[in-house]
Amino acid sequence: MIYLDNNATTKVDDKVLEEMLPYLSNDYANPSSMYDFAKKPAEAVKKARVQVRDFLGAANEKEIYFTSCGSESANMAIKGVLNCNKEKKHIITTKVEHPCVLNTYKELEKRGYEVDYIGVNSTGELDINELKEKLRKDTALVSIMWANNETGVIYPVEEIAEIIKTRSNETMFFVDAVQAAGKIPINVKDTQIDLLGVSGHKFHAPKGVGVLYVKPSTRITPLINGGHQERGMRAGTENVPYIAGLGLAAEIAQNALDYELKEVKRLRDKLEEGILKNVFNARLNTSLHNRVPNTTNIGFEYVEGELILLHLSDLGICASSGSACTSGSLEPSHVLRAMGIPFTALHGSIRFSLSRFTTEKEIDYVIENMPSIMEKLTKISPFQDELEILRRR
Amino acid sequence: MIYLDNNATTKVDDKVLEEMLPYLSNDYANPSSMYDFAKKPAEAVKKARVQVRDFLGAANEKEIYFTSCGSESANMAIKGVLNCNKEKKHIITTKVEHPCVLNTYKELEKRGYEVDYIGVNSTGELDINELKEKLRKDTALVSIMWANNETGVIYPVEEIAEIIKTRSNETMFFVDAVQAAGKIPINVKDTQIDLLGVSGHKFHAPKGVGVLYVKPSTRITPLINGGHQERGMRAGTENVPYIAGLGLAAEIAQNALDYELKEVKRLRDKLEEGILKNVFNARLNTSLHNRVPNTTNIGFEYVEGELILLHLSDLGICASSGSACTSGSLEPSHVLRAMGIPFTALHGSIRFSLSRFTTEKEIDYVIENMPSIMEKLTKISPFQDELEILRRR
Repeated sequence: MIYLDNNATTKVDDKVLEEMLPYLSNDYANPSSMYDFAKKPAEAVKKARVQVRDFLGAANEKEIYFTSCGSESANMAIKGVLNCNKEKKHIITTKVEHPCVLNTYKELEKRGYEVDYIGVNSTGELDINELKEKLRKDTALVSIMWANNETGVIYPVEEIAEIIKTRSNETMFFVDAVQAAGKIPINVKDTQIDLLGVSGHKFHAPKGVGVLYVKPSTRITPLINGGHQERGMRAGTENVPYIAGLGLAAEIAQNALDYELKEVKRLRDKLEEGILKNVFNARLNTSLHNRVPNTTNIGFEYVEGELILLHLSDLGICASSGSACTSGSLEPSHVLRAMGIPFTALHGSIRFSLSRFTTEKEIDYVIENMPSIMEKLTKISPFQDELEILRRR
Repeated sequence: MIYLDNNATTKVDDKVLEEMLPYLSNDYANPSSMYDFAKKPAEAVKKARVQVRDFLGAANEKEIYFTSCGSESANMAIKGVLNCNKEKKHIITTKVEHPCVLNTYKELEKRGYEVDYIGVNSTGELDINELKEKLRKDTALVSIMWANNETGVIYPVEEIAEIIKTRSNETMFFVDAVQAAGKIPINVKDTQIDLLGVSGHKFHAPKGVGVLYVKPSTRITPLINGGHQERGMRAGTENVPYIAGLGLAAEIAQNALDYELKEVKRLRDKLEEGILKNVFNARLNTSLHNRVPNTTNIGFEYVEGELILLHLSDLGICASSGSACTSGSLEPSHVLRAMGIPFTALHGSIRFSLSRFTTEKEIDYVIENMPSIMEKLTKISPFQDELEILRRR
């Protein structure tokens, strides 16, 4: 099995699992309990908060809140700051945000908010001037992802934060960093970002745990009211095993960042170049530069993406078309549509996303097999004339 | 270590952990992905939904939504139904709900809701007539727990559902069943309950996974917007390991219900009788009948609860005063205050909560040691005259 869908989810690192196991067996106390037996789980949560603080470059571990996933972090951030600033009803975001963010804004539109969606160019990049033009006095929130899940394109959120805050300190800035964390350096304390969301299962912690960073000066209400956990900001008995796992995963990811930026990038580039060179109907759907190191998105013209995925799956290769969160829908990717990817490639676009566990052998295998898959699939395409033109190119 | 704090959290059943492990190691795919590798995790979620359906006696597995905890379930239920019925602004609940529910209502009061809190008598039981009197045309929601976490007292939620629905089909009924699930039979399909919340870690699944049952005719909005997961009602990549674990834990708890109702009850009764007989300043803080089988709450007069817990902890015995979610606060339990427990016993009240893993030997050990702990502690109490009267009783 060759797993090249690490933007959908990742394998739990064996060391992370090992860190979790005591809290799933003998050390099961509720960390809020009074007795000695609760000390070890309480310490584990404390330690993880420090590890995540360092991972995100936050000034203080009190700025770190554990949640159940990236979607919860986004919902908590967005709804939480809007609750604290009810007079302002304008929001700016991008057309290429993750569904968990976009659908939250769709919901807020029904509740009376006006949302501006900034577009991207053909390589997936934002126009900062468009943001500047859209900023208004009543802009309550700007929400821009750090890296796109489908293309890997990195957005200049640090620069955007400066622009927003120069205009108004009352406009909050939420950054969905789910696809950036563990792939590029993050140092929130050097930025003017107010809120930043992260998901554990994108960097080898399990599915079901996330983080929301909140700058101390940023006012926010809880999404989940109840007990005193997370300093009253997120109720519910702490998921000690996953929090401990997330802490270690963050520490490992931080230490592995150099490897990610060099070696994972090298393998990704090799895969990309190999496919673009050997497959006649392949085109790159994303910026060559300014990308996270693990992601590529390649359009295979005149071929159906689902069919490509099936053939890859038969060879034990896992990749994806679009986000796993929208899979099952027949609509082509909203990200690629926003980029204006031509119709001929839109339906046959595949995202390959690597991890530090991806090997050279696996990459070679994919490069080797991609041409024959495409030979088979282009044969049954109804666009033979168009394919013939591409073949002769 | 003798763990008698199973209402705070429980040990993950070894079989449950075993069920989870594959999804924490090799079978890590995102269940929403298209390839074969995602089939096993997707099947695991499907299977768990059926197991939980049967555990709660729901008519259809589509009525089961997985959440990250009991607090999320409560917030989703309460805020979700109120969003669908914005004209009605009246809520009825009890004074003895769990903090996650009570604090949600405190928050809603700030947002313009009027909340009536029904009281309980000295054995912790509700007066149904008070509920009947409080029901109004604009009552949007009634929210009553199935069993109390501190006393174990069971509330007649099935009867209450009939009363509510006879008055108005538009008044929604949410039942926090966190402390009932796995301890007494639940059959939602035979009731008129609209929404029912459950937490995995109270019946030997891990901390960080819960359930919300929603009757098909009940309208509700999501708390966490985003992807298509949980049929669009709860975004976020499914926590496959915990969901699979919760499913098996539900199945095991269902099969163990007889043991719980007979054997766990026998041990609880033995512990209770043993302490009440052997400790001169002990009094029962709860109804003798009409309780979940695993819980007792005993007041030790003229002694500080924290001190008792420390001495128990020194002997390796885990018990609690009040809810773990409120521990750390110096306020005496809101539940015992609502019951009018005399001041003399209020501060020295201890909850013992058993599980199917509790042994006779453990119970004997506690009964044996409780008198000497109390001898020590009463010696340093400033209430020597009052204690002398109790001793001679």
